[in-house]
Amino acid sequence: METLPLEKAFTLIEPGPVVLVTTSHGRHRNVMTLSWTMVVDFTPLFAITTGPWNHSYTALRASGECVIAVPTVDLLDQVVGIGTCSGRDTDKFVRFGLTPVKGRQVKAPLIRECLGNIECKVIDIVERHNIVVLQGVAAHFDAARAEKRTLHAVGDGRFVVDGRRLDRRSMMQSKLPAGV
Amino acid sequence: METLPLEKAFTLIEPGPVVLVTTSHGRHRNVMTLSWTMVVDFTPLFAITTGPWNHSYTALRASGECVIAVPTVDLLDQVVGIGTCSGRDTDKFVRFGLTPVKGRQVKAPLIRECLGNIECKVIDIVERHNIVVLQGVAAHFDAARAEKRTLHAVGDGRFVVDGRRLDRRSMMQSKLPAGV
Repeated sequence: METLPLEKAFTLIEPGPVVLVTTSHGRHRNVMTLSWTMVVDFTPLFAITTGPWNHSYTALRASGECVIAVPTVDLLDQVVGIGTCSGRDTDKFVRFGLTPVKGRQVKAPLIRECLGNIECKVIDIVERHNIVVLQGVAAHFDAARAEKRTLHAVGDGRFVVDGRRLDRRSMMQSKLPAGV
Repeated sequence: METLPLEKAFTLIEPGPVVLVTTSHGRHRNVMTLSWTMVVDFTPLFAITTGPWNHSYTALRASGECVIAVPTVDLLDQVVGIGTCSGRDTDKFVRFGLTPVKGRQVKAPLIRECLGNIECKVIDIVERHNIVVLQGVAAHFDAARAEKRTLHAVGDGRFVVDGRRLDRRSMMQSKLPAGV
């Protein structure tokens, strides 16, 4: 994994992939599957929807930190498995063969097997909607990874894999943020 | 376009497609391209990030309504065009050949050419983050449309088209909401 400039980190989340969110609290690490994410600004700021129904929520609140990791299609069964069991009684890193890697800015682990990892600090919780606002503080990208296709959850148990890429950079030049 | 049961409407947004958001305010209709969206609950509730930098924002606030329309890959150049000009000086429906269709619950128009349309009411604005929370109140789906592949904006002028679909419904049975 190499460092990804922070101003490019939003491009990992903007396409809407299903992500894994890791937390670390005391001696307890955990990871959850999440599809409800949104870019809020380019600095980058992200929003996620989560709440007490996720075991990770307590750790997220208490530690004020997490890592958003972006898995690829070869990890689909791990993604689904992580989303259908609880960290309450399972060390999901062990169970799903994920390798935790020490980050630079937060205690929550990066996931070695993922395409991208964004270290985040919780900067706000909008309690009335269960929306957690995260500031990305460091980002990592595994450019050497052969499989780069991410997954998009439909929400009904089906997933869409990334297909063709189309380039409209010339049409959009005037609207792109600096540095991407 | 046929009616889509409201409990399935979140499945249009959960995969993270770039969307078109229409508004109607007084005699002025408009449409903007938006990639910063998130599901907040299954009822369905959605969050979008937008603000005064979008011409549509004034109409969205004043009318308290919008339609989230989901375009497919054949509409890419319209999607990019809509995102790179302003409703201040352009009737984008005319310019981009989109057909406004009357919805059931809101004055903002549906877009005939889109795969899905969700009529929404603004229920909250989280001013400090420019997050607008929307309640979906009616949904429509064009099942007869041959092209159903949606687009995912990378944010750097590139777009990813939907590829293969993978089915994990049996693994996820216990976690799926009712009615999807």
